[in-house]
Amino acid sequence: MAGNSFGQLFRITTFGESHGGCVGVVIDGCPPGLKISEAEIQKDLDRRKPGQSAITTPRKEEDEIKIMSGVFEGKTTGTPILLLAYNNDIKPEDYQSMQNLFRPGHADYTYIKKYGIRDWHGSGRASARETLARVAAGAIAKKYLKEKIGIEFISFVESVGDIKTNIDFNKVSLKDVESNIVRCPDQKIAQQMIELIKKVRSEGDSIGGVIRGVIKNVPVGLGEPIFDKLSADLSKAMVSINAVKGFEIGSGFEGTKMRGSEHNDQFFSQQGKIKLKTNNAGGTLGGISTGETIYFRVAFKPVSTISQKQETVDKNGRQVSLEAAGRHDACVLPRAIPIVDAMAALVIIDHYLRHKAQNG
Amino acid sequence: MAGNSFGQLFRITTFGESHGGCVGVVIDGCPPGLKISEAEIQKDLDRRKPGQSAITTPRKEEDEIKIMSGVFEGKTTGTPILLLAYNNDIKPEDYQSMQNLFRPGHADYTYIKKYGIRDWHGSGRASARETLARVAAGAIAKKYLKEKIGIEFISFVESVGDIKTNIDFNKVSLKDVESNIVRCPDQKIAQQMIELIKKVRSEGDSIGGVIRGVIKNVPVGLGEPIFDKLSADLSKAMVSINAVKGFEIGSGFEGTKMRGSEHNDQFFSQQGKIKLKTNNAGGTLGGISTGETIYFRVAFKPVSTISQKQETVDKNGRQVSLEAAGRHDACVLPRAIPIVDAMAALVIIDHYLRHKAQNG
Amino acid sequence: MAGNSFGQLFRITTFGESHGGCVGVVIDGCPPGLKISEAEIQKDLDRRKPGQSAITTPRKEEDEIKIMSGVFEGKTTGTPILLLAYNNDIKPEDYQSMQNLFRPGHADYTYIKKYGIRDWHGSGRASARETLARVAAGAIAKKYLKEKIGIEFISFVESVGDIKTNIDFNKVSLKDVESNIVRCPDQKIAQQMIELIKKVRSEGDSIGGVIRGVIKNVPVGLGEPIFDKLSADLSKAMVSINAVKGFEIGSGFEGTKMRGSEHNDQFFSQQGKIKLKTNNAGGTLGGISTGETIYFRVAFKPVSTISQKQETVDKNGRQVSLEAAGRHDACVLPRAIPIVDAMAALVIIDHYLRHKAQNG
Amino acid sequence: MAGNSFGQLFRITTFGESHGGCVGVVIDGCPPGLKISEAEIQKDLDRRKPGQSAITTPRKEEDEIKIMSGVFEGKTTGTPILLLAYNNDIKPEDYQSMQNLFRPGHADYTYIKKYGIRDWHGSGRASARETLARVAAGAIAKKYLKEKIGIEFISFVESVGDIKTNIDFNKVSLKDVESNIVRCPDQKIAQQMIELIKKVRSEGDSIGGVIRGVIKNVPVGLGEPIFDKLSADLSKAMVSINAVKGFEIGSGFEGTKMRGSEHNDQFFSQQGKIKLKTNNAGGTLGGISTGETIYFRVAFKPVSTISQKQETVDKNGRQVSLEAAGRHDACVLPRAIPIVDAMAALVIIDHYLRHKAQNG
Repeated sequence: MAGNSFGQLFRITTFGESHGGCVGVVIDGCPPGLKISEAEIQKDLDRRKPGQSAITTPRKEEDEIKIMSGVFEGKTTGTPILLLAYNNDIKPEDYQSMQNLFRPGHADYTYIKKYGIRDWHGSGRASARETLARVAAGAIAKKYLKEKIGIEFISFVESVGDIKTNIDFNKVSLKDVESNIVRCPDQKIAQQMIELIKKVRSEGDSIGGVIRGVIKNVPVGLGEPIFDKLSADLSKAMVSINAVKGFEIGSGFEGTKMRGSEHNDQFFSQQGKIKLKTNNAGGTLGGISTGETIYFRVAFKPVSTISQKQETVDKNGRQVSLEAAGRHDACVLPRAIPIVDAMAALVIIDHYLRHKAQNG
Repeated sequence: MAGNSFGQLFRITTFGESHGGCVGVVIDGCPPGLKISEAEIQKDLDRRKPGQSAITTPRKEEDEIKIMSGVFEGKTTGTPILLLAYNNDIKPEDYQSMQNLFRPGHADYTYIKKYGIRDWHGSGRASARETLARVAAGAIAKKYLKEKIGIEFISFVESVGDIKTNIDFNKVSLKDVESNIVRCPDQKIAQQMIELIKKVRSEGDSIGGVIRGVIKNVPVGLGEPIFDKLSADLSKAMVSINAVKGFEIGSGFEGTKMRGSEHNDQFFSQQGKIKLKTNNAGGTLGGISTGETIYFRVAFKPVSTISQKQETVDKNGRQVSLEAAGRHDACVLPRAIPIVDAMAALVIIDHYLRHKAQNG
Repeated sequence: MAGNSFGQLFRITTFGESHGGCVGVVIDGCPPGLKISEAEIQKDLDRRKPGQSAITTPRKEEDEIKIMSGVFEGKTTGTPILLLAYNNDIKPEDYQSMQNLFRPGHADYTYIKKYGIRDWHGSGRASARETLARVAAGAIAKKYLKEKIGIEFISFVESVGDIKTNIDFNKVSLKDVESNIVRCPDQKIAQQMIELIKKVRSEGDSIGGVIRGVIKNVPVGLGEPIFDKLSADLSKAMVSINAVKGFEIGSGFEGTKMRGSEHNDQFFSQQGKIKLKTNNAGGTLGGISTGETIYFRVAFKPVSTISQKQETVDKNGRQVSLEAAGRHDACVLPRAIPIVDAMAALVIIDHYLRHKAQNG
Repeated sequence: MAGNSFGQLFRITTFGESHGGCVGVVIDGCPPGLKISEAEIQKDLDRRKPGQSAITTPRKEEDEIKIMSGVFEGKTTGTPILLLAYNNDIKPEDYQSMQNLFRPGHADYTYIKKYGIRDWHGSGRASARETLARVAAGAIAKKYLKEKIGIEFISFVESVGDIKTNIDFNKVSLKDVESNIVRCPDQKIAQQMIELIKKVRSEGDSIGGVIRGVIKNVPVGLGEPIFDKLSADLSKAMVSINAVKGFEIGSGFEGTKMRGSEHNDQFFSQQGKIKLKTNNAGGTLGGISTGETIYFRVAFKPVSTISQKQETVDKNGRQVSLEAAGRHDACVLPRAIPIVDAMAALVIIDHYLRHKAQNG
């Protein structure tokens, strides 16, 4: 299979290029009877969309989502849901000069080598615009999981470059995340992040960072060992996002330095319920959810598009200089929060349905 | 689908518990005409097997692999290949006392909550013994990729606890990796690792570490955006391994602190071939291989089974003490090297076949 | 997985209801570099569309197809292709009176029981309008197979009710099929079919028939035993079409009366090429194509929508009478020809790519 | 994917050649907690096994099934179930003379052309011995469906050559089917069938026939339009069986001659339950089960192995004569009954789980 589908039972297939007719997604397998509106989906898209604040790209994309099928009188029918956003702010001429060269850090080179042909308007299929479709599908997954089981997705920006918050993620609410434009719930650190991003942008450069993913109220039992462990599917989901270079769950890389006697989370009983004293595992054991909060970290490299002059080659191997014209994000993290939440929701809903099939 | 298959075109399905009749794997989709013998597969299994050195568990498992179908007169026929290893060193009585309690760090609790029933001999399906099947299937994948395209898999132990090598992975050969029992090609560091492992074991404890994964000679063009990016599938493959808590490719988490101007790998032309000056990307751009060496890191938590006394609960929620009897690894890293290589090979061969289907 | 995808490597996912915003399809896995235009796809759609002749429904649906993604400068790019047709001739009020009752022969009852909700405009997702998406995707598959390997799809109407042609399918060309409005290449029989359909329509009734499927120039070797035999996948493809109740390949049901000595097709050698003297097998042996013409038959029941008064019940179990207003086909066969060809093409291209992956 | 898996959620993967080490199946996705024993599975295998009666091949194959994983203390655990039968009656020398020639009606030619290599012992992977694995997996599916929902599978032999029963399938019990060695519940016709088979065998020939498939007590709502209709998946399941050339459900090919006014099954209400007066649909509408009995017909061609002399070619295209030595079935129908039931059960259980996931 080509790689544009994700999930087994709540299965999404996305399509669209940055400057083609549209981007969107078909969802096959959404349970019927769920109330859903374009406005609800739009809310999440607005968290992702360009031009939303002083630290995102000034590029204006309306990203207006349309429900084209699978919803009847405001409810899902169990048939495929098509969600579409037409591409309006199309300026192919911006890219004309770049059609034959390979931008560093971008997929221009690998696409042309793989497919022998490449839509060079924007980044074509490799554009981050495709994440719009993920967020749209994720909005439906989130709605279902919230209503049905009370699951919540509360990711936030943990670090930008060297600036990092040590806030206790257990105490962060969605409102805290949305309380500033960088989506870091630690107000003081958030200010520093914003300043750093502005500085980097003024230098024509870009910077990376880490998103802390948090999923609350996941019931015990989700995950399908031995390959489709919940942790493994979350990992794939995150690393499939543009610019992501790393994933860790629970104690992660730091945990490799611990002793087993420290790392093992002890079980105890509280009011007839079995719980864990610590949560180094990060919410899964053996790839199956424990009922504790799932938390993980996602590493984003600095945005590849920068305004500084860069050396590269064209398709004939000739050395050329590249100076990108302006409309890019200096830091993708604030806009990536809804993408991380969406991908997490797509993993959780899929595993929820899979679990229900076999064990429900 | 339940989660015991991996891959689309070179598709493996594994089965077996630690103390059941056998563990093994069916490979569906192996190209026909490949010469393969039990001895070749056995070689990789011997790198994984318990009891192989002074720092692994003294448990003796023969792990003798049998080819039961799909190979005719020494060659694959294109039909399903069944690989089996019977379980011989079975001591269910070792586990009798633990059948009703939940060992910290293990999947006892989540399995019983998920399935309502649990094979408590050893760790049942959640035992690391299932990785035998991965290594066996991976051995065939590796053979094919080596013969057909010259691809090599050269993972090694990069750190154990706090002890870490800074060796240049580009210069490490398979022989270097095999030159000591801890499988770290840096001899001095390796000695320190061995001592640490021995110390930890003498304390009845365990310790984690990081494996550096390295794949050489991957041709440009493998990977299926936007979900089945090569990086994303590698990530899932690694995090699906028992005890793995993190994955990063290329610059990984450290790269989040870099500026785009530093991080972007510049293209240049050398003797008519396009190459990259640096390799912060780690061998993929846009989820497609660049032709450069693929490298990544995999975080293993400390082994959950320790000899120290631990507090936990039984299935009725009653608090109990647990003191595991002896035969465990204090550090799983040395034996995990062939598992990481195998999973990497399974990802690469699958993407190789997928690429051939659509673009070949 | 929900059931709106078909194929593994050339994978289509369709969506849309008869009266919703649109119907269409995403194709994931189309090889890059194929020239394709909306006009080429439209040609096949026009063979399927309502109102095309005196014996089809007078309902006017424009069925105008749009390529929305995955094609760049007239060529496929290897990324998902979205094909859309907006629904224009929407008259939900026609169905208002039927929203609570179960039309005999239709899926109203099973949809409401399965999903608990039902789009009662037209037949919603169960409408034959969804076959538009199959034909559109099939047009691309056919183009590829024709250009790349010279494969041709030449189905025709073999019988309508009791009227049946005995024409030798080996001698029928696409031009012959298109030479009359009923798409039976036997002109005399075609006339009788047309008269029968007109008669049935004048009675407010409907009638079934059989389509002969014919695929020429399929190379030897396509098909993936033991479950994904070419014959098995063709069977599924055909029976998945609305109103289809039967499939047979080669000698089919009649062949069950033969002796093995008659039925076995003998091999012989001709100019260094191995061929078959007869073709009772219908073009596959062991589920793999033999290189001979593939032929099969597909049974269509009479259209469920008729103008005569029928007894049924409403959702409360109350007995009601139903008299459908006019715009239906009395016989679906002539319009089903491009659907059968499309589904056959989707099976063949998928197996072609699968074969290429493993054995190419 | 290569084609040796069937099903999505109750997913089987089969392996093994007729004369290799073993044949068998891995089941991934069987719900946990089901009681199952080797003896129960064996019962179905005994209905399939050679040498069971005067009209089957005298070849003795023990077909003894072993449960190797996934069952603990007599119950399924939700982990993969491996079922194995070792090959004992191996006589590769019987086939030595045939290794380079292409037996008419067999897959020798297509396998060598597809894979470039062929296990010529017996028919290798193309041997009907692989159906053993289907029956074994089907036995577990049947057990689950019987216990959980009361579903019953009661296929029988409807015709052998020209001899056909017109018995009302609604009145046939499993006991009736098992009341004679040909598995036709019409005793008089059964005798004629037995005589015909004996006659055909004495002539060194073979004969085909039709199996009537019957599934009782399927709840309304199973089936996943629009491609994975219950009817479509049953069709694929049946046509994937060795020697099957046709499938029809409900009115099938005969129904194409009916008028819509005759064919449409009327709904009516009985004691608060909605039912159908007739069942021309055969138990599905729109690809979803109606709650009525599902019935279908499966066409088996005459067995390809006959004792008469036949002309064919060898792999070099040289004409050769072939005279098969004895141990074959003259008619495969009696032994195919459990295979048809098994495949039907595999389809139903898969759709039951899929329905539960999305709508349960």
